[in-house]
Amino acid sequence: MTRTVIRGGLVITAAEEMAADVLIEDERVVALAAGGSRTAEDWTADRVIDATGKYVIPGGVDAHTHMELPFGGTAASDTFETGTRAAAWGGTTTIVDFAVQSVGRSLREGLDAWHAKAEGNCAVDYAFHMIMSDVTEHSLKEMDLLVDEGVTSFKLFMAYPGVFYSDDGKILRAMQQGGDNGGLVMMHAENGIAIDVLVEQALASGRTDPRYHGEVRHELLEAEATHRAIRLAEVAGSPLYVVHVSAASAVAELAAARDRGLNVFGETCPQYLFLSTDNLAEPGFEGAKYVCSTPLRPQEHQAALWRGLRTNDLQVVSTDHCPFCFSGQKELGRGDFSKIPNGLPGVENRMDLLHQAVVDGRITRRRWVEIASATPARMFGLYPRKGTIAPGADADIVVYDPNATQTLSAATHHMNVDYSAYEGLRVRGKASTVLSRGTVIIDDDTYLGRPGHGRYQTRDTCQYLI
Amino acid sequence: MTRTVIRGGLVITAAEEMAADVLIEDERVVALAAGGSRTAEDWTADRVIDATGKYVIPGGVDAHTHMELPFGGTAASDTFETGTRAAAWGGTTTIVDFAVQSVGRSLREGLDAWHAKAEGNCAVDYAFHMIMSDVTEHSLKEMDLLVDEGVTSFKLFMAYPGVFYSDDGKILRAMQQGGDNGGLVMMHAENGIAIDVLVEQALASGRTDPRYHGEVRHELLEAEATHRAIRLAEVAGSPLYVVHVSAASAVAELAAARDRGLNVFGETCPQYLFLSTDNLAEPGFEGAKYVCSTPLRPQEHQAALWRGLRTNDLQVVSTDHCPFCFSGQKELGRGDFSKIPNGLPGVENRMDLLHQAVVDGRITRRRWVEIASATPARMFGLYPRKGTIAPGADADIVVYDPNATQTLSAATHHMNVDYSAYEGLRVRGKASTVLSRGTVIIDDDTYLGRPGHGRYQTRDTCQYLI
Amino acid sequence: MTRTVIRGGLVITAAEEMAADVLIEDERVVALAAGGSRTAEDWTADRVIDATGKYVIPGGVDAHTHMELPFGGTAASDTFETGTRAAAWGGTTTIVDFAVQSVGRSLREGLDAWHAKAEGNCAVDYAFHMIMSDVTEHSLKEMDLLVDEGVTSFKLFMAYPGVFYSDDGKILRAMQQGGDNGGLVMMHAENGIAIDVLVEQALASGRTDPRYHGEVRHELLEAEATHRAIRLAEVAGSPLYVVHVSAASAVAELAAARDRGLNVFGETCPQYLFLSTDNLAEPGFEGAKYVCSTPLRPQEHQAALWRGLRTNDLQVVSTDHCPFCFSGQKELGRGDFSKIPNGLPGVENRMDLLHQAVVDGRITRRRWVEIASATPARMFGLYPRKGTIAPGADADIVVYDPNATQTLSAATHHMNVDYSAYEGLRVRGKASTVLSRGTVIIDDDTYLGRPGHGRYQTRDTCQYLI
Amino acid sequence: MTRTVIRGGLVITAAEEMAADVLIEDERVVALAAGGSRTAEDWTADRVIDATGKYVIPGGVDAHTHMELPFGGTAASDTFETGTRAAAWGGTTTIVDFAVQSVGRSLREGLDAWHAKAEGNCAVDYAFHMIMSDVTEHSLKEMDLLVDEGVTSFKLFMAYPGVFYSDDGKILRAMQQGGDNGGLVMMHAENGIAIDVLVEQALASGRTDPRYHGEVRHELLEAEATHRAIRLAEVAGSPLYVVHVSAASAVAELAAARDRGLNVFGETCPQYLFLSTDNLAEPGFEGAKYVCSTPLRPQEHQAALWRGLRTNDLQVVSTDHCPFCFSGQKELGRGDFSKIPNGLPGVENRMDLLHQAVVDGRITRRRWVEIASATPARMFGLYPRKGTIAPGADADIVVYDPNATQTLSAATHHMNVDYSAYEGLRVRGKASTVLSRGTVIIDDDTYLGRPGHGRYQTRDTCQYLI
Repeated sequence: MTRTVIRGGLVITAAEEMAADVLIEDERVVALAAGGSRTAEDWTADRVIDATGKYVIPGGVDAHTHMELPFGGTAASDTFETGTRAAAWGGTTTIVDFAVQSVGRSLREGLDAWHAKAEGNCAVDYAFHMIMSDVTEHSLKEMDLLVDEGVTSFKLFMAYPGVFYSDDGKILRAMQQGGDNGGLVMMHAENGIAIDVLVEQALASGRTDPRYHGEVRHELLEAEATHRAIRLAEVAGSPLYVVHVSAASAVAELAAARDRGLNVFGETCPQYLFLSTDNLAEPGFEGAKYVCSTPLRPQEHQAALWRGLRTNDLQVVSTDHCPFCFSGQKELGRGDFSKIPNGLPGVENRMDLLHQAVVDGRITRRRWVEIASATPARMFGLYPRKGTIAPGADADIVVYDPNATQTLSAATHHMNVDYSAYEGLRVRGKASTVLSRGTVIIDDDTYLGRPGHGRYQTRDTCQYLI
Repeated sequence: MTRTVIRGGLVITAAEEMAADVLIEDERVVALAAGGSRTAEDWTADRVIDATGKYVIPGGVDAHTHMELPFGGTAASDTFETGTRAAAWGGTTTIVDFAVQSVGRSLREGLDAWHAKAEGNCAVDYAFHMIMSDVTEHSLKEMDLLVDEGVTSFKLFMAYPGVFYSDDGKILRAMQQGGDNGGLVMMHAENGIAIDVLVEQALASGRTDPRYHGEVRHELLEAEATHRAIRLAEVAGSPLYVVHVSAASAVAELAAARDRGLNVFGETCPQYLFLSTDNLAEPGFEGAKYVCSTPLRPQEHQAALWRGLRTNDLQVVSTDHCPFCFSGQKELGRGDFSKIPNGLPGVENRMDLLHQAVVDGRITRRRWVEIASATPARMFGLYPRKGTIAPGADADIVVYDPNATQTLSAATHHMNVDYSAYEGLRVRGKASTVLSRGTVIIDDDTYLGRPGHGRYQTRDTCQYLI
Repeated sequence: MTRTVIRGGLVITAAEEMAADVLIEDERVVALAAGGSRTAEDWTADRVIDATGKYVIPGGVDAHTHMELPFGGTAASDTFETGTRAAAWGGTTTIVDFAVQSVGRSLREGLDAWHAKAEGNCAVDYAFHMIMSDVTEHSLKEMDLLVDEGVTSFKLFMAYPGVFYSDDGKILRAMQQGGDNGGLVMMHAENGIAIDVLVEQALASGRTDPRYHGEVRHELLEAEATHRAIRLAEVAGSPLYVVHVSAASAVAELAAARDRGLNVFGETCPQYLFLSTDNLAEPGFEGAKYVCSTPLRPQEHQAALWRGLRTNDLQVVSTDHCPFCFSGQKELGRGDFSKIPNGLPGVENRMDLLHQAVVDGRITRRRWVEIASATPARMFGLYPRKGTIAPGADADIVVYDPNATQTLSAATHHMNVDYSAYEGLRVRGKASTVLSRGTVIIDDDTYLGRPGHGRYQTRDTCQYLI
Repeated sequence: MTRTVIRGGLVITAAEEMAADVLIEDERVVALAAGGSRTAEDWTADRVIDATGKYVIPGGVDAHTHMELPFGGTAASDTFETGTRAAAWGGTTTIVDFAVQSVGRSLREGLDAWHAKAEGNCAVDYAFHMIMSDVTEHSLKEMDLLVDEGVTSFKLFMAYPGVFYSDDGKILRAMQQGGDNGGLVMMHAENGIAIDVLVEQALASGRTDPRYHGEVRHELLEAEATHRAIRLAEVAGSPLYVVHVSAASAVAELAAARDRGLNVFGETCPQYLFLSTDNLAEPGFEGAKYVCSTPLRPQEHQAALWRGLRTNDLQVVSTDHCPFCFSGQKELGRGDFSKIPNGLPGVENRMDLLHQAVVDGRITRRRWVEIASATPARMFGLYPRKGTIAPGADADIVVYDPNATQTLSAATHHMNVDYSAYEGLRVRGKASTVLSRGTVIIDDDTYLGRPGHGRYQTRDTCQYLI
């Protein structure tokens, strides 16, 4: 048995701030004791980590990543190995990635394929959501099996006709099934059928630059789809989790639904909080770096997102990490924005960007931990192992230096992608030490982890459904 | 040094559920350790409390009581001694009572008078809000001093003209002052000027029974005042806490304000969640037992209140404990409902009634602790001493038996009042053992406390203002 | 030249009530003069109609009828001949029927076919909307031509997949085209894709009675589609007219859109104002008589519809007249509600039912004329010929006896259908004399018209678009 | 008997546009006939007015003027003689002025005093609303008498404590009385109690310039009072008319109330549609010219007001004409904005400014007539004599040249005030000929009227209450 003590830090969870020492035995937290107390000081340990002047927080839970995702003839540039290592560097100790069902195939095949990609390669713990591309009698029945084995959330798309798209009838049926078996339906809420008309019209009229990606994916078509998904969930009597909310009008739909007491949840991502259509309109083909869907919105939407995080109309900040290199990948869309692979890198930056929001006074420290770690853990059934520091929890812990400063850059980041969406941005705060189930995997700017340390996590169902 | 260990329970806080043992040294919690772990088992203690099969929760914080309040020529029947003892029986270990400024007198005089009433008499810890009945240049300056010494919240009344009533100009000035000094304005939100017209008309037309109390205090006049208070706070740039919300339309005003990101908070009380105008209309003069202001509402309002607690548009459940005996006190209003002293007993019942809501599936266990203990502690600056179980916190702890059953009744309760508002109601759950700052004051149906154990608590400012 | 004078009545238009005589020369109104004035009395005429004690109102404009509509293997039982004659009996002097484009065919073919059905057969004037069942490059271009020739409104369906259904992309394109050429998109707003799933599930589980028709066509799926259509119109920058609104939640969507200043309009029908799911649930197979889509709703929706008519969130009351005989037609759906032809008779009853609403104090007399005649005329570009009594207008005039009483019944009505949806309903008010372009076609309970009197009306574009 | 024919114009009413000739006998309209028809051409007349190329509209009804109003130690500079003459110049043929009850005196005394001021002096017809400054048992009873004699609307103030102010109890009682006797309560909706605190604070801190008038009269305090008035009317079960709405947030309150079907009405004024806080901030003391209450708002509020006029959430545009000369009157407030007499001139400009809005495409011609003439006439019980051109109506008619242009200026206007709020504004449209009850009072830039032509009008109750 290995005993580790983290001494002298300020332990921050979603609910508490405690001057407390943390005792870890092997992979789990065993005890917390008041800092400086005799009880704490009596603890003996194999390793003592000095957290004086630092925060001790639960490791980040990034509930939305796409490692190695095939998309538009290419694939996301981070493998499970490189992507989870980057996550570790950024203080994220669990990812929930998306296994993909292909049209005409079973959920099982898709899930198996993703297990094969991840197994033995991950630096931190990982779990899977399931993308349903083909809602059939068979795949509906498979949902039950997957929930039983710990894959408890299912993403559907109202966008991407011909690829991931499900029509409203299929969505309704999946929601009904999820309402019965506890599976949580996650929704990419954009009216893809209407968007495709606008895409075609834009291209036909020579509007081919990256910034038109933002224009054709009209904010009202995100709001519309969000509203529609809520109504379908209401008819099905099931909960709903809307991914990557970017439009103010979509936040308003979530707020209205939640005011009525519906079990509707919303996630946003750092790119929507920190970037805007100004980036999409950067000269040359630079805008391609910022092409993702839902798209970046005009700057004034950011205030609505921050407000949504404060009012809890948005509950989770994930990354939708899905990196494509500018060179060779993003470039596929020169002259036709619709061919630019959709996605941004970010798994390494999330905890720091959100800490910067703490520094800027936008959110409290506790809310930082809540939206980045505690709520995603509970939303996706990983709690109480993940998302908190408490007796019995997995020792996924970040000793975070709130006073360190760093400049985000492709030159220094660890994601396998040739640009940073936040190039040159100076932020305050940095992970000093990162533990994954008791093992130190980052310390003092050194990666000490290894592929395969990360372990697959089965998940319970959503813990917000009362 | 006295060491106490609570073993084998499920520790529940606003955010966590942990199978953990709790180590207390003297008055404070020192450590939590995983139940059954070597670390926990190695703890030696002077006293071991067995919590097997029980919940271990932070003691309740009742942020709205009126012990010994003079009202309408009589006074609330619970003294600080009897009322805090009843609180202890019910698992509440901190009350925040209201000191009253009289018209024409200073805040200081009022506060001193309340200190005199409470000091040396309380079974559990206590703090004070300040009722401002007379907003003047002088009393506005006194607000600053009171905030400095730990009285950080100030209640104003839009009702009761001629007694507690402040006009909108005075309210605005108090809000501005609070916005500057951190004092939180608490509002009794009913349009008392309009209500008094309706009272007069009702009495003039012979509608004198208790049930007319509910009719003249029209729900829209609560909603109106709630809206007005919100707008005034918006103009003043200050936060607002609305007490004893009872009307669905008032909840809607709070929800709308919170959607816009305003620092507006709302409290409801068990009587609005469990009772209704049906009680006010009980035959004979029985309805007088249920006369309080804001009044009980028709049953359909209950759903809106429960929903508000779920959506966090309501954050706190306090009691507004203000008991008057039916015999001799409530009877003052025979033949004229406007002379019935306003108020209900409840300080002893709150934790149990809300646990029944857990049993009924209305709220989770964590939400129970949150609305009854954690949030009031944080709202009124008592956290982290109160409202949680964590290293460093005061050892105000309730070992709660979720499987015990009890029947609420005046025959068995400990409040100094001759009736129960919940007479005969059977509920599940009961405090087995209650600790106040490490001292066991209730154990196994025996009161072990004493007057004067309860200590006055200075308070920080509201912790929800970012 | 034939001169007719209508003397002594109260002329009511959407805006005025005037004790005035009306002078008609041939087909048009030439003058109005104060009743009893020398000017009026000096008028000589070939025919004088005594309207003393009666109302003189513009003939009704029923903007939503389906004569001879093929549906589900049968066809609506009223031909243009029988249907327009029944309209005349009921005080309606203009209908706007729906020509239908078949999938794979042109708009032109459909329009020609409907012209062929109507020409020479109509008792009153008629015009056509165009149902677009197949939005293609070609049919979009045809829209321009049809607008030019006076068919200025185009109905699309979000329901009936595989028959009339258009997906959101096609809807968006039609809206864009209409936004450019002035054509008004009319929408059947129900999420037919989701509804078909519920239909299939209902039938599979043995819920086959007519009342399940109302359950599977969930009100929220009407509200959803209404919202979606509004959003698509907003993206297209075009106006929108939603037909046969029946759900309170759909009215709320219209109200919200109109509050934002959008050119969004709503129509309801007498069946939603006077009937409910109680009728659908009538014993035996009687409920089939009330099967239409959108379906009848629970009674409490009626209040929202009446309120919408008062607040002008609903602007038009049409009939959606589409009768199928109970015997032989409705019976096609015994044992499978989805096979019941959708539609109710009503073209003859509308003016009387709405007058009953005047009697009941729900709407004013002017509002009666407005929703039944003036607004549909202006909405669909028939004004100032139709919809008012003013110099220059067509002399489509009803002398209406507000004190007559009648009992609605299949035994006495003139529609070609074997039941009445309002069988036995006693109403006050009845057309005494009906003129179509100056010709008396109903007088004193006698039909004096003839097939072919009714003339096709080209229409201008919607007159509410500023 | 004098017969007048107006030939060749386009007659525009709230509902119709007709190429029609108008026949007037003495004071009333007798007939309309199609332009060019034999019937029309046969008309003989003492006077023929050629309206070719012009509009023929009902004379304007300005439902909100304050001639000779005593205010802040001075009085409005237009007498009934000068003010009604200016109205005539501007195409307004009826004003409804406000008689004032003084505190401690009866309604009767106030009304008599205003009759004395007006009688024999007016160029156009006039009527009175009654300002209630002192709601007592006695004045409540007087309301009934006034309604009976044709003064059917009663203005109350939530602003101006110590002068016109009524508290919520008094307002509620007046509303109840109006609900019973048909009197319409008109409300100046600003929270004057809170505003006075802000005024005092502004002056104390040296913020004394006119622009601070706009700041202290905070838009949210207009919205708040609007909401409160609505709620009180809801409790009283009575209708409500809110005067001079200027804030977007107040329009939102009206819209919300109307969506719920309440009989709540709103008026705005040209100054809020065309001017803004930019004017209040004009250099030197120029801003004083624009001081009125409710105050001018930032420009972005104008869009909400125009939208409100489109959506019918605002129904009337009146002027609140209350002029004070810059020299000697407005100057009373140099160094203290609170001493600037509140009010603007405008009675002469309203019809032209609103026609400019027609030219600018903001409203239709019919809506112009509706908000400026038809609706105020109907709202305040003057219809069908006023507000339309129809057989039987008073011949208050304006022949309006839509192509004339004019520049608004104090140099050319006829109001008795030394500045124009719209100095130098060029507008299209101008009254060519104005008839008041059949008498030409303006023709070809010449005033042909006389004091005393204008006649007092008794009024029916509001015609919008169904």
